[in-house]
Amino acid sequence: MSETKFANIALPAYYAVIFSSQRSDGDNGYGSMADKMIALASSQSGFLGYESVRGTDGFGITVSYWLSKKSIADWKKNIIHQVAQEKGKQIWYEHYEIKIAKVERAYGKLPPI
Amino acid sequence: MSETKFANIALPAYYAVIFSSQRSDGDNGYGSMADKMIALASSQSGFLGYESVRGTDGFGITVSYWLSKKSIADWKKNIIHQVAQEKGKQIWYEHYEIKIAKVERAYGKLPPI
Repeated sequence: MSETKFANIALPAYYAVIFSSQRSDGDNGYGSMADKMIALASSQSGFLGYESVRGTDGFGITVSYWLSKKSIADWKKNIIHQVAQEKGKQIWYEHYEIKIAKVERAYGKLPPI
Repeated sequence: MSETKFANIALPAYYAVIFSSQRSDGDNGYGSMADKMIALASSQSGFLGYESVRGTDGFGITVSYWLSKKSIADWKKNIIHQVAQEKGKQIWYEHYEIKIAKVERAYGKLPPI
């Protein structure tokens, strides 16, 4: 077999933080804090992007993508984020689950440009 | 240091399949097929569970959890699932992205029992 002509670029591994949550009743400042947290997360080193959706029943999934476990740990320790985490635990969420996972493969169907 | 008294059970690694999608307009048989696919996936070996939400703008995230990469590959090859995949690609989704990721850590806040 001859060598392939394709570049076979090895993309660096990256991580997904899967945040599934059930909101409790009432806004209680959640909406404005959520917007702030997205802006703040987006400015962190290692942040790659996020996807988020919440249904009318208050159940939502947010997946954020990060270059490394260190960038996820740094974001978790961010002092402004810690205030939001505490309010999330005490007030905004009835139930949440967080999973940190290493993305091993990605593919899909992109829309026409 | 004395040995810990905690059992320190090492849970097996498991995998998340993150499926983000933008629906195209119209149902075109999507709703009933989606229900069937959930029932069928749930009966597959290695299936652990799933979470799913779609917003009114048609953007949705479904995360399914599996015991191994083999169980994910087997589900992808399932003949009934393949028919749905093809319809998804051709008709139901304008854009979708699939990521297969190994869950390395999980924690959260559970609701009171």
